[in-house]
Amino acid sequence: MIKDDCIFCKLANGVFPTSTVYEDDDFKAILDISPSAKGHTLVIPKNHMADLLEADEETLGKALKVVQKVAKAVKETMGADGVNILQNNGTAAGQSVFHLHFHIIPRYDNDSLNLTWEQLSYADGEADELAAKIGSYVK
Amino acid sequence: MIKDDCIFCKLANGVFPTSTVYEDDDFKAILDISPSAKGHTLVIPKNHMADLLEADEETLGKALKVVQKVAKAVKETMGADGVNILQNNGTAAGQSVFHLHFHIIPRYDNDSLNLTWEQLSYADGEADELAAKIGSYVK
Repeated sequence: MIKDDCIFCKLANGVFPTSTVYEDDDFKAILDISPSAKGHTLVIPKNHMADLLEADEETLGKALKVVQKVAKAVKETMGADGVNILQNNGTAAGQSVFHLHFHIIPRYDNDSLNLTWEQLSYADGEADELAAKIGSYVK
Repeated sequence: MIKDDCIFCKLANGVFPTSTVYEDDDFKAILDISPSAKGHTLVIPKNHMADLLEADEETLGKALKVVQKVAKAVKETMGADGVNILQNNGTAAGQSVFHLHFHIIPRYDNDSLNLTWEQLSYADGEADELAAKIGSYVK
């Protein structure tokens, strides 16, 4: 299903031109036009879904197979030392286009990208209690 | 297959204690003990594989289904506004434990976490050429 006002629906389904890395019946992988580094690629399902939380079972089952093969090709082509897979859900998480996509980000030893955080800690017993609470919400 | 000297093999298979959010035959989801925010959860396959690039087809097919349901529960339990899924491959990408894992990171409007980058651009024609080159490496 394509959503009329969704830019990524148009990119993934050939309505707008893209620099296409890979395509199959369900996904298109394209270069991000505002990359963190050259070779930064997006894997996008052709069907519309806003984010991972709304993704259907079939897409969930297929997406990482595409991400893996494209990530291997990005790493090999660019001679990268590593690769991040980043997938953002919601404005608070940095999502700006509300159609599911996976960032494949080539990384180099001592590059300037920082995808880390200040590490917090839990009080004694707090983590076990919280884990059980979150677990009770898993459906 | 469990690797003897792998800490995440031990955590995922109950050799060492964890604050467990979710568990099935193939995966364990546990609280990160050095979280970016409370509720930061790791989804870890029970079998050993160093990273996503080395993951087998079965794991690739199942992992996002687990990540989705745990991410929904993290977001709901924590009252988060968004959630990032981050998966690091290689030291250059910030991977510190060489057993595949997915970070589920709860996010809040205007929190202090920054998982963004300076946006670069391509010269005319450069992106199409690079996309074709990467595409030729996709197997």
